[in-house]
Amino acid sequence: MITVPTLLLDTNKCKDNIQGMAAKAKKHRVDFRPHFKTHQSLEIGKWFMDAGVNKITVSSVAMAEYFSAEWDDITIAFPTNILEIDRINALAEKITLNIQVESAETMSFFTDHVHFNLNIFIKIDVGYHRTGVSPNDTETINQILHILDKNPLINFKGFLGHAGHTYQCRTKECIHKIQRESLDILQMMKERYKGRFPSMIISIGDTPGCSVAEDFRGADEIRPGNFVFYDLTQNQIGSNEINQIAVAMACPLVAIHKERNEMIIYGGGVHFAKDRLEDVEGPIFGRVVEKRENGWGEIISGMYIKSLSQEHGTIAVPQTLIDQYKIGDILYILPVHSCMTANSMRSYLTLDGEKIGRLS
Amino acid sequence: MITVPTLLLDTNKCKDNIQGMAAKAKKHRVDFRPHFKTHQSLEIGKWFMDAGVNKITVSSVAMAEYFSAEWDDITIAFPTNILEIDRINALAEKITLNIQVESAETMSFFTDHVHFNLNIFIKIDVGYHRTGVSPNDTETINQILHILDKNPLINFKGFLGHAGHTYQCRTKECIHKIQRESLDILQMMKERYKGRFPSMIISIGDTPGCSVAEDFRGADEIRPGNFVFYDLTQNQIGSNEINQIAVAMACPLVAIHKERNEMIIYGGGVHFAKDRLEDVEGPIFGRVVEKRENGWGEIISGMYIKSLSQEHGTIAVPQTLIDQYKIGDILYILPVHSCMTANSMRSYLTLDGEKIGRLS
Repeated sequence: MITVPTLLLDTNKCKDNIQGMAAKAKKHRVDFRPHFKTHQSLEIGKWFMDAGVNKITVSSVAMAEYFSAEWDDITIAFPTNILEIDRINALAEKITLNIQVESAETMSFFTDHVHFNLNIFIKIDVGYHRTGVSPNDTETINQILHILDKNPLINFKGFLGHAGHTYQCRTKECIHKIQRESLDILQMMKERYKGRFPSMIISIGDTPGCSVAEDFRGADEIRPGNFVFYDLTQNQIGSNEINQIAVAMACPLVAIHKERNEMIIYGGGVHFAKDRLEDVEGPIFGRVVEKRENGWGEIISGMYIKSLSQEHGTIAVPQTLIDQYKIGDILYILPVHSCMTANSMRSYLTLDGEKIGRLS
Repeated sequence: MITVPTLLLDTNKCKDNIQGMAAKAKKHRVDFRPHFKTHQSLEIGKWFMDAGVNKITVSSVAMAEYFSAEWDDITIAFPTNILEIDRINALAEKITLNIQVESAETMSFFTDHVHFNLNIFIKIDVGYHRTGVSPNDTETINQILHILDKNPLINFKGFLGHAGHTYQCRTKECIHKIQRESLDILQMMKERYKGRFPSMIISIGDTPGCSVAEDFRGADEIRPGNFVFYDLTQNQIGSNEINQIAVAMACPLVAIHKERNEMIIYGGGVHFAKDRLEDVEGPIFGRVVEKRENGWGEIISGMYIKSLSQEHGTIAVPQTLIDQYKIGDILYILPVHSCMTANSMRSYLTLDGEKIGRLS
């Protein structure tokens, strides 16, 4: 019985999302290296193995350590932190480790301090402007390639991009355009360097692009992550339908305020995290869905989280519906950003009542 | 040596904050029942004992369970969740437990299901409009009092208010006004009921009000929490000076982008949480401070977190300063909302290198 805020996982929806993306990668003849930062669970990882996946992406050394128990080819898609050199060496000894570099300084450090085979991706800024080397900055790229060449343990794996600016899109055309531009940039880079590095690859990955696009020309590998659960933000972008969202928060109703059409749940910022979505009602932090026999159904129109405190969530509820609820009810709520909600909750409860752990 | 995002605690500043508030409560002859949701640490709790505190406030049953190891008088300041009745009974058997009720439904449930002595606070909405009974809703208040009277184990403890609308203030005058209005409401309630419940008390508490106000007439007890660490939000409200903030994140610098005056830290939404502060530069998520021999100093003008991803933070840095930084440096950053940052980080590192645990 659920008595406190609990993150429900619909395993069927989740497995459908995994198999759908695996099939899409196969269809487009690109390798599938899913990003595991969303679920961070060895158990959910097994469902990817069932779909034929044998290599993964993570966003921290800690995640790589956790998943190295069962995975032997891991990319850490984050500007590598030189202060974690000892843990990186330990991982490189154990598994095939691919790290991301975007400066000569970081490359020099690893060239001097790596004692095991290590693959290097150069991160290219494909237009998101968060991290990466500009594709026009040939000097930095050549410097990095020159430096890594000095250590025979280090291998240049290829160019990696993250088109995170697809998150600004609200139409499929916008996503298609960014996906194409990003791949064109990386393809150009490959043309330039493949003579010298014949086995190099192009890796790209963001859930909107990988969900919507049907044109992967130039890509060798995709790294989407959020699609394993999807969420309201991805739905607003156009990546998924509401019925593909595989996680929902179950929260006890603790107070009802009819005079202002609000209800209070036990479920706050420490449970949902505080990502917000600008929607028709203003900023929202989650949407209430219909409870079904085994899971959940459609969004209930007009019922959403309008604000979050540390432990409280304030739910807007239409006047016509408020009398249907009573204190002690459990509301099911779709998250705005499933990666952050799952990170806050630290475990999952399947609809069959099984608890699934994750890195915590 | 710090190699990953770490929450630093300046114990001197923290103890000064604790002793300052304890002295203020003593001066104004109000009981001090600090809210422990901010630090959630038994070890930090001991510093409150050193300041003479013998009763506390928390915001969940789980926190009450954790602190019941060392504290025997705990108020759970949250609309009580009837689904946690078994855990509440277990706590009520062990310690003096005070819970918050704001509806006849919840009160009926506890009257029927409580097996040990339990104190009830009726939560009054003093103007924040998140939770609580309207002070004008005499019918509900009388209903609750009528129902609790049926179970001799249940004792009416008094009225509890939380003037959370002080967080909207940006001047001390605004805070004074809300503090006075809130206390006037609760004092009026006490006048109305003290004949029937001579030992009832009035409990109020919010960090802005308790930090700024010098007029506590009508209050028997105060329950501030955030003041133990303070943060940038409280500073903007006017509750504290920057040099009173007792926690700072230490984050490795992993990338430098001179062309756009930005740097990337290892430190994202999973570390800071995502509360934002609207400030002169737009929304910010933290401010970089000067590193000192043993701790930190002033805010570095123009250096702040402009955006947060899951693991990345993007730092705005003035062009004149960017050359002073190199990859592998550790930046010290003051949080926007220390309660949420501390909740994400789950432990503290003192400036002397001692690790301090918390509920996690």
